[in-house]
Amino acid sequence: MDEFKVIEIKRSVFDNNDKEAQRVRQELKQKKTFLLNLMSSPGSGKTTTLKATISRLKDEMNIGVMEADIDSDVDAKAIADAGVRSIQLHTGGMCHLDAGMTEQGLTEFGTDDLDLVVLENVGNLVCPAEFDTGASKNAMILSVPEGDDKPLKYPLMFTVSDVVLINKIDTKSVFDFDDDAVTERIRKLNPNAKVFFISAKTGEGIDSWCDWLRNEVAEWNK
Amino acid sequence: MDEFKVIEIKRSVFDNNDKEAQRVRQELKQKKTFLLNLMSSPGSGKTTTLKATISRLKDEMNIGVMEADIDSDVDAKAIADAGVRSIQLHTGGMCHLDAGMTEQGLTEFGTDDLDLVVLENVGNLVCPAEFDTGASKNAMILSVPEGDDKPLKYPLMFTVSDVVLINKIDTKSVFDFDDDAVTERIRKLNPNAKVFFISAKTGEGIDSWCDWLRNEVAEWNK
Repeated sequence: MDEFKVIEIKRSVFDNNDKEAQRVRQELKQKKTFLLNLMSSPGSGKTTTLKATISRLKDEMNIGVMEADIDSDVDAKAIADAGVRSIQLHTGGMCHLDAGMTEQGLTEFGTDDLDLVVLENVGNLVCPAEFDTGASKNAMILSVPEGDDKPLKYPLMFTVSDVVLINKIDTKSVFDFDDDAVTERIRKLNPNAKVFFISAKTGEGIDSWCDWLRNEVAEWNK
Repeated sequence: MDEFKVIEIKRSVFDNNDKEAQRVRQELKQKKTFLLNLMSSPGSGKTTTLKATISRLKDEMNIGVMEADIDSDVDAKAIADAGVRSIQLHTGGMCHLDAGMTEQGLTEFGTDDLDLVVLENVGNLVCPAEFDTGASKNAMILSVPEGDDKPLKYPLMFTVSDVVLINKIDTKSVFDFDDDAVTERIRKLNPNAKVFFISAKTGEGIDSWCDWLRNEVAEWNK
């Protein structure tokens, strides 16, 4: 198991989060590090999806993972076991990360040697959507058991996400979930969003998602 | 379908939420109205569980439902179809309700004739746990697809909940979910929590949960 450390991050002191986010993004661009902000509800499969993604990409690029969590270090352990560098960011009860908090994590982590950093945001479909972290791209996961009506109920999250992964498609036999309806609801909010149907458990669809991510990282780090 | 109205609630002006919550709770007690604050992640089955609960209890008591949502009125429609009075509270992007916001909803709703009011809080395992709404009791739903590790990752929510409903037990065949492990994790945080294993879809376990709720309402409204 790789080592990981735990960082207690402080509430950001920056009043203007958008400006700070822009600065973080520009620095990452200069350093040729792609930052993916990964958001979802609790239990949608962020960590399992990340592990499946890491196993396909880790021989091609240097990957690091920052796990934001209110309290535990369950996820950082899982990611360290997957064989890439990871740290745990404790948010101290905060329900999201902003750009200043993300930068604290990046600084502590040390990203100079990394091509791709994934920020696993706090499990929450509401608050993380409201704060630009400075990421290169935003991704979100919606899992089949959560239901195809979620774009109607949490519209901002779907609006700010560049890519939507519909996870746990292996469980469709026990849920009513309409692929066309969910895609239409996402497109209505965000016509440019990429939508991938995946199962992090069985591996279905993961290659297509990884192709997209590989291409984005290559473009960013040119 | 019963009618429902949509209320745009404002951010609370009260600095001391705990004090305000205590006042709301006392007023409800005097009026013999039991307020259940129902919390969970998005997609855990709050609305479906409510519909199953309403169908068992609506002939015995007067029930009203306040649906808090950031934007949509999907849930209020579903509840109105179930045959009880409901209103939709739009939180204007806010990720939780506090006591002042709850009171605005109760005042607009009019609760004098109601024995039981259910507040369906915003789908979020983080922020709603931090604010006492003034409810008589707090309930939360954790669904099987979310995983049995959630008490480790969102401890405050499990700590403040008087009752935990483990929903979607009909889907266990496609998920790894350890009943004993989740119960032990909940009890460690909250030794007094009642835990019910239910399927809102098939009806399994709903009677036991309704027995608990019926008893609590009767005690409160004595």
